[in-house]
Amino acid sequence: MNSTDSRIRQLIVTPIAFSDPPLLNSSGVHEPLALRCVLQLVLEDGTVGLGEIPGGDDRLERLLAAGKVIVGMDVFDTTAVAAAIDATLLPTVPGSHERGWITSAVEVACLDAQGRLTGRPVSDLLGGRVRDSVPFAAYLFYKWAEHPALDGRPAIGDGWGEALDPAGIVEQARVMRQRYGFDSFKLKGGVFPPDEEIAAMKALAEAFPGSPLRLDPNTAWTVETSRYVARELVDVVEYLEDPTPTLAGMAEVAETSPMPLATNMCVIAWEHLRPAVEQNAIQVLLTDHHYWGGLRRTRELAAVCEAFGIGLSMHSNSHLGISLAAMTHVAATLPNLDHSCDTHYPWNSDDDVIVPGPLELRDGAVKVPTGPGLGVELDHDALERLHRRYLDSGLRGRDDTGYMRRFHPEYALRLPRW
Amino acid sequence: MNSTDSRIRQLIVTPIAFSDPPLLNSSGVHEPLALRCVLQLVLEDGTVGLGEIPGGDDRLERLLAAGKVIVGMDVFDTTAVAAAIDATLLPTVPGSHERGWITSAVEVACLDAQGRLTGRPVSDLLGGRVRDSVPFAAYLFYKWAEHPALDGRPAIGDGWGEALDPAGIVEQARVMRQRYGFDSFKLKGGVFPPDEEIAAMKALAEAFPGSPLRLDPNTAWTVETSRYVARELVDVVEYLEDPTPTLAGMAEVAETSPMPLATNMCVIAWEHLRPAVEQNAIQVLLTDHHYWGGLRRTRELAAVCEAFGIGLSMHSNSHLGISLAAMTHVAATLPNLDHSCDTHYPWNSDDDVIVPGPLELRDGAVKVPTGPGLGVELDHDALERLHRRYLDSGLRGRDDTGYMRRFHPEYALRLPRW
Repeated sequence: MNSTDSRIRQLIVTPIAFSDPPLLNSSGVHEPLALRCVLQLVLEDGTVGLGEIPGGDDRLERLLAAGKVIVGMDVFDTTAVAAAIDATLLPTVPGSHERGWITSAVEVACLDAQGRLTGRPVSDLLGGRVRDSVPFAAYLFYKWAEHPALDGRPAIGDGWGEALDPAGIVEQARVMRQRYGFDSFKLKGGVFPPDEEIAAMKALAEAFPGSPLRLDPNTAWTVETSRYVARELVDVVEYLEDPTPTLAGMAEVAETSPMPLATNMCVIAWEHLRPAVEQNAIQVLLTDHHYWGGLRRTRELAAVCEAFGIGLSMHSNSHLGISLAAMTHVAATLPNLDHSCDTHYPWNSDDDVIVPGPLELRDGAVKVPTGPGLGVELDHDALERLHRRYLDSGLRGRDDTGYMRRFHPEYALRLPRW
Repeated sequence: MNSTDSRIRQLIVTPIAFSDPPLLNSSGVHEPLALRCVLQLVLEDGTVGLGEIPGGDDRLERLLAAGKVIVGMDVFDTTAVAAAIDATLLPTVPGSHERGWITSAVEVACLDAQGRLTGRPVSDLLGGRVRDSVPFAAYLFYKWAEHPALDGRPAIGDGWGEALDPAGIVEQARVMRQRYGFDSFKLKGGVFPPDEEIAAMKALAEAFPGSPLRLDPNTAWTVETSRYVARELVDVVEYLEDPTPTLAGMAEVAETSPMPLATNMCVIAWEHLRPAVEQNAIQVLLTDHHYWGGLRRTRELAAVCEAFGIGLSMHSNSHLGISLAAMTHVAATLPNLDHSCDTHYPWNSDDDVIVPGPLELRDGAVKVPTGPGLGVELDHDALERLHRRYLDSGLRGRDDTGYMRRFHPEYALRLPRW
């Protein structure tokens, strides 16, 4: 038996804020700062496991509650740890999807600690790699050149410039390919009328013949519009992501769609799987370990997809290196990962909380770290800096719509919009 | 990083034969010897991982083929190890269920070795225990008092005596409870006309009020007969197992059955899950890591059951202690294990290949071993003895029907029979 004391002593949760460009989507525009929580799970023997999830006051409070209930549990008992957290949150957080964020964050930190204790990379604890590097897609966004001046703050530019039409999107894609070697491209749509986004996809197909493409309007379209776009983009995109709201709507679109429909919006918790299969509403699932309950749960979800003939891809929110490491480890172990994964990392990596080195986007892929655990180390100075930025910002949640209305007071959230 | 060399050096496969009582089922009667293969997976650093599966010439040959293809692979790469074996067997073994036996056996040995290398019990590598001991059901059989004299061999008795009617089954159940503390009972049926087995179940219900009961005729009944038995046993059994052949037949029975239907016969491979759900053919799945691809696959299968509202129980064949340890470890980690597990262990444990100690059936349960890996050690003398018995026996497969016909030449296999 291992003689180390692998019981959990403490969960340290640090809310942080990092820079985010003015990326447009169907709900508005990204604010200058994105919120995230960094977890340090400290064991009795001093081992520390890392985790990272989207921030905000609600999540922070729930993570702190989770941290209290798991003290003294063994870090290898991840199923029991998740159950304890789930039971604690259930009375105040009835949605299993919302509880999934919290159990996920802690599970990843547990697995990082387990890997450090056993000297094995997290991928080994999940069944081992079936690929040594994980392919990612360039995540293209319509965007402004800068965050406009506001409340006495000067405008905040970034190196990417403006992208508001097909030519701008193709140029962004070229830079993405040049810097990171991506060979597949995803456009965040739902920003402009469908014909403009169809034109952008066709321009991408012309500029990058043979590269897999996909379009995600985040439920901006009606069933009828979705069917129109699907007809227009036949042989252009490998899948259409969340064209319209609800399982029933997706099922209606799927009836006539010439390409698979993907989702990370209408199937986001275990209880959605059965109706999704029964209605044949989706053909590709974008998994995301951050809310599906963690890395082992992601393997289990991939097995469900395998059993029911559902394709597998991976979703991303704005994130930093701890999340990228976790995404890369689990993706490396999934035999049926049919598509390159999404990642926002190029938009946010300048502000990372990990020591540079082990994670690099090259040739459109990230090599799976081979060090113990997630294989990344916390940069404590960066963490402190980003935490201070969180404190100074006063920001306590994400509000893409409210931020858009600061500049365009007439803007209204409407889904579907077209 | 761990500095040990965790690459696979060699897979040693030892065919063995152990004593089995004359247990009756819908295909005939158990022969005096049951065949099994014991695996020793030897790593470059000398670590040895154990595995055990049902024997027979076909399996032995496939295990030897598997052993060749995995040499040099890392023992932590269990997904890749399984894929390599699967690819090797595919041309000659088209059925995924049959390949599952081989990949399972090797995966268990890999996990045992991983546990020994990392100092953790196998249950920890699967997400940790959610229970410290695993409940098992008494596995009741109609049986003869002895294997009849044959080919100059004297009759072979056992301590259990005859059980050929309700009173005999109740008496067997009493001994099972007295020796091992079982509080749930499963009867292997399909041996006598349904009314006699219904009477046995009612006698058990009267003798053990409140104890969960189940009946498994191994597809001996037509749909009509199954519906009749189900009506007769309402409020007597917790589920009815494989009353009739095929998914379609089970679905017909399920339409009117007042209790859940369980199976380990019509859903035995990944590709059976979707049709089973679509037809609502089963309400309980008896998982068995020996053919579902191993212990991690069993966790994934449990997740499928959770997602689709299917209850979870566990199947067993005649087995020894390595299998019992593996069954116990994985069962300990499954949150949604709704029923006590099946085990033949009381019928076979006198002939075990492991050093006694860590596994004990007490209070109807087995405590999860907490030592590294599976937590059991090979008894090399016992292995040698049982291997010699295999060689001397000349037995190369299982044939319950043929053995029955030695004593009752008029016996014919007929499923369904009633």
